[in-house]
Amino acid sequence: MSALRPIDTALARLAGIVGDRATSAAGVRADHGRSEAYHAARAPDVVVFPETTQEVQAIVSLCRELRLPLVPFGAGTSLEGNAAALHGGVCLDMGRMNQVLAINAEDMDVRVQPGITRKALNAQLRDTGLFFPIDPGADASIGGMASTRASGTMAVRYGTMKDNVLALEVVLADGRVIRTAQRARKSAAGYDLTRLFVGAEGTLGVITEVTLKLHPQPEAISSAVCAFPDLKAAVDTAIAVIQSGVPVARIELLDAVMMKGMNLHARLGLPELPHLFFEFHGSKAYVGEQAETAQALALEFGGLGFEWAVTPEERSRLWQARDNTLYAGLALRPGARAMITDVCVPISRLAGCLVETAADIAESGLTAPVVGHVGDGNFHLLVLIDPNNPDDLARAKAFNDRLVRRAIALEGTCTGEHGIGMGKMDALVLELGEAVDAMRLVKGALDPLNIMNPGKIFRPAGQEERT
Amino acid sequence: MSALRPIDTALARLAGIVGDRATSAAGVRADHGRSEAYHAARAPDVVVFPETTQEVQAIVSLCRELRLPLVPFGAGTSLEGNAAALHGGVCLDMGRMNQVLAINAEDMDVRVQPGITRKALNAQLRDTGLFFPIDPGADASIGGMASTRASGTMAVRYGTMKDNVLALEVVLADGRVIRTAQRARKSAAGYDLTRLFVGAEGTLGVITEVTLKLHPQPEAISSAVCAFPDLKAAVDTAIAVIQSGVPVARIELLDAVMMKGMNLHARLGLPELPHLFFEFHGSKAYVGEQAETAQALALEFGGLGFEWAVTPEERSRLWQARDNTLYAGLALRPGARAMITDVCVPISRLAGCLVETAADIAESGLTAPVVGHVGDGNFHLLVLIDPNNPDDLARAKAFNDRLVRRAIALEGTCTGEHGIGMGKMDALVLELGEAVDAMRLVKGALDPLNIMNPGKIFRPAGQEERT
Repeated sequence: MSALRPIDTALARLAGIVGDRATSAAGVRADHGRSEAYHAARAPDVVVFPETTQEVQAIVSLCRELRLPLVPFGAGTSLEGNAAALHGGVCLDMGRMNQVLAINAEDMDVRVQPGITRKALNAQLRDTGLFFPIDPGADASIGGMASTRASGTMAVRYGTMKDNVLALEVVLADGRVIRTAQRARKSAAGYDLTRLFVGAEGTLGVITEVTLKLHPQPEAISSAVCAFPDLKAAVDTAIAVIQSGVPVARIELLDAVMMKGMNLHARLGLPELPHLFFEFHGSKAYVGEQAETAQALALEFGGLGFEWAVTPEERSRLWQARDNTLYAGLALRPGARAMITDVCVPISRLAGCLVETAADIAESGLTAPVVGHVGDGNFHLLVLIDPNNPDDLARAKAFNDRLVRRAIALEGTCTGEHGIGMGKMDALVLELGEAVDAMRLVKGALDPLNIMNPGKIFRPAGQEERT
Repeated sequence: MSALRPIDTALARLAGIVGDRATSAAGVRADHGRSEAYHAARAPDVVVFPETTQEVQAIVSLCRELRLPLVPFGAGTSLEGNAAALHGGVCLDMGRMNQVLAINAEDMDVRVQPGITRKALNAQLRDTGLFFPIDPGADASIGGMASTRASGTMAVRYGTMKDNVLALEVVLADGRVIRTAQRARKSAAGYDLTRLFVGAEGTLGVITEVTLKLHPQPEAISSAVCAFPDLKAAVDTAIAVIQSGVPVARIELLDAVMMKGMNLHARLGLPELPHLFFEFHGSKAYVGEQAETAQALALEFGGLGFEWAVTPEERSRLWQARDNTLYAGLALRPGARAMITDVCVPISRLAGCLVETAADIAESGLTAPVVGHVGDGNFHLLVLIDPNNPDDLARAKAFNDRLVRRAIALEGTCTGEHGIGMGKMDALVLELGEAVDAMRLVKGALDPLNIMNPGKIFRPAGQEERT
């Protein structure tokens, strides 16, 4: 009798836990190694589809026993290879744990399983008068969004996942199941474990339940777009709107190149100039007041006038086009993939950072449309690359490296919302220095065998050279 | 030559670091062992007044070498013995590190040393058009407020310290100085160390700098009080206001007993009935709209009509009276001290929790006025006790124990904003169970010698029996 490979042992033992919901079929494995990122695919050895916290607990215990890497997987929409199975092992596809467990409308919160996507959640909330506002564009899973500390277009008004997760249930590496907090709106009860697991990218434990804050559906919503003669005028308007205290729900910057892509992809028919897309939420009167203030500021900074999206259909068309900027960008160069950058700087540094970056793009000869959550100082470039051309990737990486250094020098961060994953481990050290050692100490304490999504966020101590 | 006690060695070595800013004078030690809490005073052996991060770093290294406990101390306003020197050692009085280091008005943030108090900070911000909204009543230090995850009357609108600290500089137990984050408004760069140190009560490191979010000074402010026939009507109004989406800046509940104390202490001349105190921030028109909505809801729930505080002087008198509820409560029983409770429950559970608690007070024969940040579901009882009567303290403790269990059963927390300190270590375990072990693992990783404010938040493993 020939010796079993460890992964065959794992597969047999997993079948004992979840029956036929564990597989090593090549197609399924490949599907779980891919992402929307530019990173090369890294497939797990086994994919398992748990349905309960108890199953997750048993799987974690098995992986601990067999020293197998364990990678939680949501909707596969992450952008830094955050869920790539770098060292093989077991991929935990949370897609079947997608139930709404309890809606507490009076308290404006909801308890969900991590596999539910934000759009599915909002569909179930429709009749409650409440909604979940975090919108990263993609229809990501709530567990994945928590794990990467996601944010998106409405963060300027409603905050990020950091602000909207009330409590988590987490399976720790030692197999214990903990609840990080009660359901009260605030608490000073010990260390903020909720915020420790939010943004930990699955490296400290597996999230099995998420309690989220909800927000009242606004009585009125109003959206508008405004073109500007140049990027700086648009950014200066955004800064002025934020500083005025107008609680704008969305304020998105799109540069002329991106507008060209959006016209190609979504037939928006808008001028190929830098734009701001606005949305205002509130009572009817207050939405009017906010829009008036923003409009006056836009005119002051050279804006070419507000175009209103009045009906829900027009609004939805506008924001769907915004959500699809990845595809709009790709439309500019058929066959290309995008390396998506994610720096975030203090807003006073935003115009300068964008102008320097535009010059860098021009010098590099790259095609890289810009889309930004400018109210937060966060912007993305979609650096278009030919996946079959290694030179292209090298140029894009060098460009991103310069961009990250520029942002950090301006007191910004290498990642506003996509996380570190496998793509920004060196940038993290550049940004936070010895603080990264404090993170490593926490990781070592909670996952001493390094089985939880290994190889993400930071290299193990002693392996810090750049690869 | 007789052997020196370790603390004499420490004192001599500290003098080498800070000159005459280290002392073991009895009066200074006693001052640093007391707090506003009911807990018995626990004085440190030495008090040291550092002026720079480098000095703090040297002091931490010395304490590590000599295995001496180190307790950071802000304004001494904590309520759970959070800064009591339980095991003696070195008290680090941060009061001389009280400078504003950089105001970034455009980015609406400020970098300060931890010893500055919130009122001193706001005085320095007055001409910038910005302010720092977190108001726990006492004029606490910013470092202390960060360390206890403080909040207070305006948290319902502006969030807690968790939401308003952008970044920290921290001296770790191993003597390294880290910066937890850059100055960008949001980031997904690794573990959220900022939120790990916020609320850690000095048990993981010493905060030496705090970068805070600021907010635009509202164009208009409007305050009103409203009396209600009973507690439930007041609470139901508060819930309805929150659910309506009105971004009320403050909504404070005061029960009839507290109103009596406030009339005694501040001569408010208001009816001795349950009250809500409201404040609205925004543009002139929007403040009017918010106030109208709230007023209509109050009437619907039986409110006896809004009384407006129109001038800045009237407003200031009102909120100063609110800030002084501790003294107003004490006025009800001259010579008493107060055990201040701090539970926080989901708002749907608030009325029930308050009604049960009122019955408990009546049965216990205690005097315990209520003041609450009801928009967050957080309320305090000032349980008045004779400090010289051990029976009184025992009854108060038993009452608080029942209250905490009640709140936890209602999915609430034992502490909304005062922290665990030495007063709620068992309550924390009751509330979060094995999650407390995860906190202990983090503590062990970052402070393996247990020199950082030892004996707070949780008992060491194996010493969990109740005392």
